[in-house]
Amino acid sequence: MKNIAILGSTGSIGTQTLEIVRDNKDLKVVALAAASNVVLMEEQIRCYKPEIACMWDEVAYLDLKDRVKDLNIKIVQGMDGLLEIAVLKNMDILVTAIVGMIGIRPTIAAIEAGKTIALANKETLVTAGHIIMPLAAKKGVSILPVDSEHSAIFQSLNGENGNLINKILLTASGGPFRGKKREELEKITVEDALRHPNWSMGKKITIDSATLVNKGLEVMEAKWLFGVDLDRIQVVVHPQSIIHSMVEFVDGGIIAQMGTPDMKLPIQYALFYPERRPMNGKKVDFYELGQITFEKPDMETFTGLKLAFEASKTGGSMPTVYNAANEKAVSLFLDKKIKFLEIPELIKASMEAHRTIQLPNVDEILQAEAETYEFIARRY
Amino acid sequence: MKNIAILGSTGSIGTQTLEIVRDNKDLKVVALAAASNVVLMEEQIRCYKPEIACMWDEVAYLDLKDRVKDLNIKIVQGMDGLLEIAVLKNMDILVTAIVGMIGIRPTIAAIEAGKTIALANKETLVTAGHIIMPLAAKKGVSILPVDSEHSAIFQSLNGENGNLINKILLTASGGPFRGKKREELEKITVEDALRHPNWSMGKKITIDSATLVNKGLEVMEAKWLFGVDLDRIQVVVHPQSIIHSMVEFVDGGIIAQMGTPDMKLPIQYALFYPERRPMNGKKVDFYELGQITFEKPDMETFTGLKLAFEASKTGGSMPTVYNAANEKAVSLFLDKKIKFLEIPELIKASMEAHRTIQLPNVDEILQAEAETYEFIARRY
Repeated sequence: MKNIAILGSTGSIGTQTLEIVRDNKDLKVVALAAASNVVLMEEQIRCYKPEIACMWDEVAYLDLKDRVKDLNIKIVQGMDGLLEIAVLKNMDILVTAIVGMIGIRPTIAAIEAGKTIALANKETLVTAGHIIMPLAAKKGVSILPVDSEHSAIFQSLNGENGNLINKILLTASGGPFRGKKREELEKITVEDALRHPNWSMGKKITIDSATLVNKGLEVMEAKWLFGVDLDRIQVVVHPQSIIHSMVEFVDGGIIAQMGTPDMKLPIQYALFYPERRPMNGKKVDFYELGQITFEKPDMETFTGLKLAFEASKTGGSMPTVYNAANEKAVSLFLDKKIKFLEIPELIKASMEAHRTIQLPNVDEILQAEAETYEFIARRY
Repeated sequence: MKNIAILGSTGSIGTQTLEIVRDNKDLKVVALAAASNVVLMEEQIRCYKPEIACMWDEVAYLDLKDRVKDLNIKIVQGMDGLLEIAVLKNMDILVTAIVGMIGIRPTIAAIEAGKTIALANKETLVTAGHIIMPLAAKKGVSILPVDSEHSAIFQSLNGENGNLINKILLTASGGPFRGKKREELEKITVEDALRHPNWSMGKKITIDSATLVNKGLEVMEAKWLFGVDLDRIQVVVHPQSIIHSMVEFVDGGIIAQMGTPDMKLPIQYALFYPERRPMNGKKVDFYELGQITFEKPDMETFTGLKLAFEASKTGGSMPTVYNAANEKAVSLFLDKKIKFLEIPELIKASMEAHRTIQLPNVDEILQAEAETYEFIARRY
């Protein structure tokens, strides 16, 4: 029996993780945490019977407490709540599917406590990879990527112990606007941007996928997760999303992981690693598929990706600024306050205004985030 | 230092193996064996300085003896010679790149002596898989496939210890006549058939590639090498030969191995397994590649592949008949005595005339081969 805790249980990754728990009798949920969706949280509590649940939002916390007062469950709140869950004694795997930098502290706490991390929170490695990876190594803790691309790389590296990586080939669908030029992107609406061709995801990540900022964040993450230099990470646009990423080794041999675009596969892989469990769902039919294509990402149009490479090269607190600026910019775009092309422009302006701190600690990371938020707030 | 012996050193795989030895100072050739190419053998002996060399052909053996009488080297001949090499005390890896069923006895002898086998002789597993695989398991001997497709499957299975295989996806270039119908194949000449689009290989295997018999033999081999049922092996025509084969696991996840079509990669992989060594040569450029395609093999036109599945399903001595009949048929075709489409017809007729022996021993396998040869000889 594996006991798991899910931070971000009401989101896309969280709910899919729970579906896997439902289908596998040897998984047990001991803790759940979410931001504010109290209705779904109540349902999850009644269904999966965790010992403890956390709401980030205080009003939601009070509401939840009242809703489940008939149950024998501890309800906690905010960062203290997340930190309590992160170090739960009988918990084996922490699924960090929470969005944003609030994932950093619980992840660090869980690693300190020797818990396996199923990592679905991009910001943790993007902003604090220099803290997380050495700590995990020191504590002998596994960081199992849940993201489809990183899981593919992780799977491709399986059994290659010590073999030198020549290149990581990070595939990208290219988003809904692949092939379009800047002029065509001027008038993109929120509705246009929320239509993703292959993956069904949350709003923020769907926009990030349209701007290629999502791929930029993945590049930064891959650098930390697999310990490779930036110039050994190549983004390959592959619109069919069948190859989820690849690794080229020093002999020129490439190992790739493929599958239908279904997040449940990488989630389940992380939960049972190194064991693969049978899974229902559509399999790839190569006869039907016919062809798959590859192209170079257009970084002159989708400057969000180019900026990610720049931010990652600068390092230190710069990736935090990149991420925080994008977060705010996407939020402004979803609120129809800025245009689609202004998202990377805001990231660029924020990066230019920032003075990089090398090897920032968590406080300095959060400080850089706050300053970026302020920088943008002053403009809108 | 790894000491290797090569059976079939003057052939395509043999010469490429020697190139790898030349580029890696910690490989040493201790023995070479070839059929009759005495000129090349002399050159190889002077360059790589093995302790022992074998010629299959008696005239070639006498010639070679004379040519290298100035050197301190033992020259042996025929099956006794091959068997002597197969069990050489200071030899670590036996590369069985010899063509035909003469590979079986040396392979068995080497396994008995605990030698690692780098297997490039198709006939060994096709005809005697039921003897070889249990013996290798009993002796704890590794059978490392050198064939591009089987190496790809082997690489894809690395690190997947015990994970259940849903399907082996054996890729096939489709050969030079892919897409053609029976009528169009009526007038195929030897010259047409010897032009292979992707791989540079020997004559016999190039024809086998055009008839898809080569793929049929690979299906039979894969069954033994990876212990999967025939109905879990799917042939996927992939004309660009970039994906060298794939494995689908029970969770729907697929691991694939890719690379440029260069036999040196799988050969080197087998020689240094599990280590990957840097290798020069063209790498896959996905931006340049653009697209790759997949299709269903046309088994109604290329009946050689269909017959392979049938022979393998029947099992016992039937795959031997399939292989022996094909060997003779290809030889008749190369001698312009039969037409291209008569190759599978001869295989079919031979299979129909054969009474299967279940679990044949080596003598019975060789007997089935001899009978098939006779059956065809009586007709031409």
